[in-house]
Amino acid sequence: MHRATDQAAPIDALPKCLTGIAGFDAITQGGLPRGRPSLVCGRAGCGKTLFAMTFLVRGATGFAEPGVFMSFEESGEDLAQNVASLGYDLPALVAQGRLFMDHVRVERAEIEETGEYDLEGLFIRLGHAIRTVGAKRVVLDTLEALFSGLSDTALLRAELRRLFGWLKEQGVTAVITAERGEAGLTRHGLEEYVSDCVVLLDNPVAGGVTTRRLRVVKYRGSAHGANEYPFLIDA
Amino acid sequence: MHRATDQAAPIDALPKCLTGIAGFDAITQGGLPRGRPSLVCGRAGCGKTLFAMTFLVRGATGFAEPGVFMSFEESGEDLAQNVASLGYDLPALVAQGRLFMDHVRVERAEIEETGEYDLEGLFIRLGHAIRTVGAKRVVLDTLEALFSGLSDTALLRAELRRLFGWLKEQGVTAVITAERGEAGLTRHGLEEYVSDCVVLLDNPVAGGVTTRRLRVVKYRGSAHGANEYPFLIDA
Amino acid sequence: MHRATDQAAPIDALPKCLTGIAGFDAITQGGLPRGRPSLVCGRAGCGKTLFAMTFLVRGATGFAEPGVFMSFEESGEDLAQNVASLGYDLPALVAQGRLFMDHVRVERAEIEETGEYDLEGLFIRLGHAIRTVGAKRVVLDTLEALFSGLSDTALLRAELRRLFGWLKEQGVTAVITAERGEAGLTRHGLEEYVSDCVVLLDNPVAGGVTTRRLRVVKYRGSAHGANEYPFLIDA
Amino acid sequence: MHRATDQAAPIDALPKCLTGIAGFDAITQGGLPRGRPSLVCGRAGCGKTLFAMTFLVRGATGFAEPGVFMSFEESGEDLAQNVASLGYDLPALVAQGRLFMDHVRVERAEIEETGEYDLEGLFIRLGHAIRTVGAKRVVLDTLEALFSGLSDTALLRAELRRLFGWLKEQGVTAVITAERGEAGLTRHGLEEYVSDCVVLLDNPVAGGVTTRRLRVVKYRGSAHGANEYPFLIDA
Amino acid sequence: MHRATDQAAPIDALPKCLTGIAGFDAITQGGLPRGRPSLVCGRAGCGKTLFAMTFLVRGATGFAEPGVFMSFEESGEDLAQNVASLGYDLPALVAQGRLFMDHVRVERAEIEETGEYDLEGLFIRLGHAIRTVGAKRVVLDTLEALFSGLSDTALLRAELRRLFGWLKEQGVTAVITAERGEAGLTRHGLEEYVSDCVVLLDNPVAGGVTTRRLRVVKYRGSAHGANEYPFLIDA
Amino acid sequence: MHRATDQAAPIDALPKCLTGIAGFDAITQGGLPRGRPSLVCGRAGCGKTLFAMTFLVRGATGFAEPGVFMSFEESGEDLAQNVASLGYDLPALVAQGRLFMDHVRVERAEIEETGEYDLEGLFIRLGHAIRTVGAKRVVLDTLEALFSGLSDTALLRAELRRLFGWLKEQGVTAVITAERGEAGLTRHGLEEYVSDCVVLLDNPVAGGVTTRRLRVVKYRGSAHGANEYPFLIDA
Repeated sequence: MHRATDQAAPIDALPKCLTGIAGFDAITQGGLPRGRPSLVCGRAGCGKTLFAMTFLVRGATGFAEPGVFMSFEESGEDLAQNVASLGYDLPALVAQGRLFMDHVRVERAEIEETGEYDLEGLFIRLGHAIRTVGAKRVVLDTLEALFSGLSDTALLRAELRRLFGWLKEQGVTAVITAERGEAGLTRHGLEEYVSDCVVLLDNPVAGGVTTRRLRVVKYRGSAHGANEYPFLIDA
Repeated sequence: MHRATDQAAPIDALPKCLTGIAGFDAITQGGLPRGRPSLVCGRAGCGKTLFAMTFLVRGATGFAEPGVFMSFEESGEDLAQNVASLGYDLPALVAQGRLFMDHVRVERAEIEETGEYDLEGLFIRLGHAIRTVGAKRVVLDTLEALFSGLSDTALLRAELRRLFGWLKEQGVTAVITAERGEAGLTRHGLEEYVSDCVVLLDNPVAGGVTTRRLRVVKYRGSAHGANEYPFLIDA
Repeated sequence: MHRATDQAAPIDALPKCLTGIAGFDAITQGGLPRGRPSLVCGRAGCGKTLFAMTFLVRGATGFAEPGVFMSFEESGEDLAQNVASLGYDLPALVAQGRLFMDHVRVERAEIEETGEYDLEGLFIRLGHAIRTVGAKRVVLDTLEALFSGLSDTALLRAELRRLFGWLKEQGVTAVITAERGEAGLTRHGLEEYVSDCVVLLDNPVAGGVTTRRLRVVKYRGSAHGANEYPFLIDA
Repeated sequence: MHRATDQAAPIDALPKCLTGIAGFDAITQGGLPRGRPSLVCGRAGCGKTLFAMTFLVRGATGFAEPGVFMSFEESGEDLAQNVASLGYDLPALVAQGRLFMDHVRVERAEIEETGEYDLEGLFIRLGHAIRTVGAKRVVLDTLEALFSGLSDTALLRAELRRLFGWLKEQGVTAVITAERGEAGLTRHGLEEYVSDCVVLLDNPVAGGVTTRRLRVVKYRGSAHGANEYPFLIDA
Repeated sequence: MHRATDQAAPIDALPKCLTGIAGFDAITQGGLPRGRPSLVCGRAGCGKTLFAMTFLVRGATGFAEPGVFMSFEESGEDLAQNVASLGYDLPALVAQGRLFMDHVRVERAEIEETGEYDLEGLFIRLGHAIRTVGAKRVVLDTLEALFSGLSDTALLRAELRRLFGWLKEQGVTAVITAERGEAGLTRHGLEEYVSDCVVLLDNPVAGGVTTRRLRVVKYRGSAHGANEYPFLIDA
Repeated sequence: MHRATDQAAPIDALPKCLTGIAGFDAITQGGLPRGRPSLVCGRAGCGKTLFAMTFLVRGATGFAEPGVFMSFEESGEDLAQNVASLGYDLPALVAQGRLFMDHVRVERAEIEETGEYDLEGLFIRLGHAIRTVGAKRVVLDTLEALFSGLSDTALLRAELRRLFGWLKEQGVTAVITAERGEAGLTRHGLEEYVSDCVVLLDNPVAGGVTTRRLRVVKYRGSAHGANEYPFLIDA
């Protein structure tokens, strides 16, 4: 048990970080919580990676905030190709030092040895990436790649706190994507409790028609529109 | 088996503790049960921490009752920032000795050793905090941080009774936040049975619109409004 | 296998035991089955303990039948305070020898040793209480405290039969409270099969409004109203 | 593997056994399949035991067919008392040698030794009872008491076949009561597949009102009304 | 891994096998796939065995195709009695060498030894039966009797493939009955994927009224009516 | 952890691969993602294999792109017969070197040894098939045959990434069929997250009538119609 009594911290109004996604910035009255990690969750095909990528690209091009995209499943080439139709030129941003793309391949052998991904190794690698471009924004895509081997909920909770704590210490505004689960907003149904800000993307089918929707489920420290809003990203 | 026959205790009407949350105090005809622990449960983003913090701040400022906020996930700085927009100045209350903020970090190593959090250590630490400010109100945020490692329901039930019993012995009015579960109001579906008072916060989405609601599910020893009421906290 | 062929018992009409809860006695045409244990089940806050306590208090004051309340979670003082607003003066009844309050604290160590509560010890203690006041009515609040450590359904079934059998041998009319489960009326979904009489309390929320309801799910040996009825207890 | 090729059995129309329950005998065009076991299943309080007892009492009094009631939970005295209000005089029938009541108490120790009930012992005991009164009808109340310790579905299936096969060899018409499960009509969701005839009793609540209903789910070798019918037993 | 590249097989239109069940043969434009196994699944009492038996009897009497009925639960006598009311005279068909009835009793000891039924033994026994009458049609009633001991889905899948493959090699048109599961059309929710043709029988209750229905869920290599049709078998 | 930072890849618009299924090519504005694997999932009988086969046959005959069909359950002869009614002459295509049919039989012994299928062996065999006909299109039917033995989700995720990565390296456009699961679009509810493109086939029954429908759930790098469309394949 580590003692961490914080008796007299000075109050600051919660600063925010414009994402550049017009509707989202309006609903949240200014974007994501600056310097904190946020969770963007949803089912396959709901637009999690697109949300995260737009957050980085707009940050780099509109707000002079370099970013790091750490991917655990898609390669940098695939990601670049996937967003090219939106007019995002990732290789150019990378070349200009405004974006750092890192593709981490979690190998089977690693999982078989320890049953989980080594967070310390991630911190070293991500720290290097942040320093390289002076990143103010970070994306981790996706949480499941890190913790799918952890079935003990007490341990998972502790590791999530450790990851989120480390990101806060770096002073970056972070987006972590997460897959939708059965029992809650996320796989284990507890990630959303540990997070300061939770955005849920959805693409429900009703009467054969699909609509993309976005809802800010939780936003510690800020009023926010809590309804469901249509979600559109275009360049 | 410890004998605890209580043959002839004198009757007192159940005393209450005004929370300062106007609607809630009206529904419950006087607030939470004084000197007993209450459970405030709900999903991510429903306002559990806000409810608990308001209970403490209003206690300290309006009823001259100092309080202890023991957090297992958010730091004191983050908490202060999160409620600043409501006009709550936590650092000032802390400086005036009317509030004690304690952030307990449950480390992975502790969980791996014993599989659970050590209640005795918590009692010592929380007892110290209570004595330091002469607290009449206590918040534990959140129950899951304490018991997520306990999967045996018989043990969990015994530990809950121990925690609740200890809090009663301190004579404090306590709020313990709890996460919503699948099979009941709480994770294990039994916390609500052991508690004297259970408040459920909810933020359901209907037709794309979210409303915050509050329901007093259970209140031993008191009549109370049992319907669902809109839940609003503003300064 | 113990032989227990009962070839020629004389027939008696099933005698009943007025609870003093007006609506319930009407629905059941005379109250609970006399000399048998009944199960009163429902979710947190549905009024199980209130039902059981009223059964005892009305028995002691209106029908000259002393009672024993054996509690596994609430202390005698808390129980007294909780029903004071209904005009029930438990300490007075205790002082007059018309009520015996016993608070059994199941300790963690006991559970860890054997995985379950020792029924033999309960029988000795409860037998003593019954003899002390010449009890005709008994309440056990709650079944889960006794059997939460038993996960083997065959064993649980045998132990339930043993508990119910013992209570019948004492000739007392008993109420045992039980928590609602997912898969049936009770936690394990089998307690209701072993019981002679099962009363279900409910407090559903519909359109934001809560109503307390009562239903007699099962009553061996008696016709009974099987619909849902509003459930009100007032002094 | 035991070879049991039955190449040239002569055809008999399926004989039936009137239960004496007027509605049921009409729906099934003559009652239960004679000389075969039938399953009567339903939730607590649906009237399983009442159905089975009426089948025996009417058999003994109206059709000169003596019967055996083997109970695993209720004593003969309790059973007699429970049906006295219907005008059934069990002790008289027992005294006249038209009914054999046997109460088998499955002790905890037995279960702990072998994890299940010993079918061979049951066969000996039940065989004796059948011969004593020359029984043509048999009731086993309830299946769960026999097999609650068997969790392996392949074994359970084999044991059910063995029990049903033995009953057929005795040439008795049998009713076996069974508790309702989550995943099917019965606890394990497979008892109904092994049975020749399955009757489902239900007492659903709709709009606060309960109705007793009966449905013949399955009847090998016979046409039958398959709808839900109101279910009433009166003397 | 066994190499089985089939590079240049000549195309034949998929031949079919009239069942003699008028409605079914119309929906499927000719009956079941000839020379392949089909799955007929449904809950208890839906008519699986009746469907299978009719397929055999009509084959033997109307299409000069002898058949084998291999039963794992019902004896030949019981089966004969069960279909006598439909005018099916099984003993006569058996005596004429147009039907082979085989009742396999899976004993508990066998299951306890290996945890499953021995497919090789089944092949020998079934092969003998097929040769004895020169069978063109085969029924296995029911799949669960063979595989209820197999909980590993990868093994079950392999064994299903082996059974289906063996049946194809015999050149018989086969019907295998299967019990309905929770998670799919069948117990394990995978039997329907491995099968070439899947027929679902159902007898849902709506508004208290039961209707028998049939649906061809899957039919590799053939167009077919995919709606739900009333299902009636009469002689 | 293998370092795979892709700092400056040139952007290409995402190329597509016409399937020859008219409706599908319209919805997706050009077909499946070229050079990437796509998942086609759905329940038994929804038309997965038909979709995949049409993709290959139209590729070979209309776009001069040879293909490989690797089947784990159906033999080449059965497959040929199943699509003959659509006018697909698989043996002719095989003879012309425009199609390679490979039937892999996963034996029980293999599963029992390692608990899973050996991906390396698959790569060798599939690589040989691709080179033999110069394949541009590949079908694996079905994913479950490969991974049904893998219950650890972290390992399964890693193996899926390995399979998909290998297919990308071959430069082929691949279709992998997958069975529908309870908790998501697929068995494990995670296959759809790892895939670039996910097509869901469905054949729901409403009011007794079945309709075949298709929905593009996910398509990384491309706009696409996201509604449900009728799905028809005819020659």
